[in-house]
Amino acid sequence: MTSYGLLVFDDAEELDFVGPWEVFTASTMVIGADGDHHVSMVAERNEPVRCAKGMAVIPHHTLDDHPAYDVVLVPGGMGTRTEVNNERVLDWLTRVALTATWMTSVCTGSLLLVASGVAAGKRVATHWGFEDTLDARDDCTVVRNARWVRDGSVVSSQGVSAGIDMALWLIGEIHGPAHARTVQRYLQYDPAPPYQADV
Amino acid sequence: MTSYGLLVFDDAEELDFVGPWEVFTASTMVIGADGDHHVSMVAERNEPVRCAKGMAVIPHHTLDDHPAYDVVLVPGGMGTRTEVNNERVLDWLTRVALTATWMTSVCTGSLLLVASGVAAGKRVATHWGFEDTLDARDDCTVVRNARWVRDGSVVSSQGVSAGIDMALWLIGEIHGPAHARTVQRYLQYDPAPPYQADV
Repeated sequence: MTSYGLLVFDDAEELDFVGPWEVFTASTMVIGADGDHHVSMVAERNEPVRCAKGMAVIPHHTLDDHPAYDVVLVPGGMGTRTEVNNERVLDWLTRVALTATWMTSVCTGSLLLVASGVAAGKRVATHWGFEDTLDARDDCTVVRNARWVRDGSVVSSQGVSAGIDMALWLIGEIHGPAHARTVQRYLQYDPAPPYQADV
Repeated sequence: MTSYGLLVFDDAEELDFVGPWEVFTASTMVIGADGDHHVSMVAERNEPVRCAKGMAVIPHHTLDDHPAYDVVLVPGGMGTRTEVNNERVLDWLTRVALTATWMTSVCTGSLLLVASGVAAGKRVATHWGFEDTLDARDDCTVVRNARWVRDGSVVSSQGVSAGIDMALWLIGEIHGPAHARTVQRYLQYDPAPPYQADV
């Protein structure tokens, strides 16, 4: 059974990780795994995390004590500008990347994958409003106009809602298209945005 | 400023309320309201809620002590089958509906709006897998093949991810299409499902 670890930190953007959380946990449910401990949230400390828009979540594990993860997901949100200077988090990303099959990010979460070295030199996606900033680092190549980007074992998506699309793609890679379609149907993911994006 | 109250309860489905949460809080941010207390999660008790797939959230308010809400949102999830017999929750829905402008639901949350009487006799949407069950109640009319349904002040959406579309529509009704487009762009909500739904 694939195990998924979603990093959470103060000011992480809520939908960035709850979108993929829903996809990964639904995937686990569809497969029929016992319990739900195959998908967990991991944080630096064993205390509630206050997300970017005010939601408070209680992480399941800490960076020092968690199951082995096959898939790691890093959300974005304003908190990434703080965590990019947090050596404990960056070191953890480097460490788990040694054994994880997939290292993934949503929105500005790609900043942490790049800064930790996990995505250094790789092609990455990020939120449209952060593309220029990330591109200015010179230690990655920002791909624009792609909903998500895979470069080796690193998969990064554009902003906020893009994590849902990326997560569905990922479970399709891991468990096959038929499985991904079943999960997509469980989520009733037939998006019908009521407005055209103001691009 | 519009105030939003999202009901949470044990075994509520995570994305059902976090999708609209992201839309409503982004709307509040774009408008430039002070702080983020205009959108809150409300639960029966002042203790962590354990959601359907294992996420633990800490509610901001209780049913007995919360700000006046203009918009109330009821998520779905297996927990609705328990809450449908919870008189405290049903009574609360009836009470807040007296002053709220909009009463909304996602997925099987419509069961609670119907059972409380708030949506009794109205046209409602729900998750595709629950349509027959809800239709069998005979105190509502289930609309199939519509992503979300408005009947007076009640707006209900189909399963899980459909709450995002409904919430964007709702802020467009409240604050206008230009505002909704700005929020949609902030969320980078240009969905690109990697698979066709297995319908």
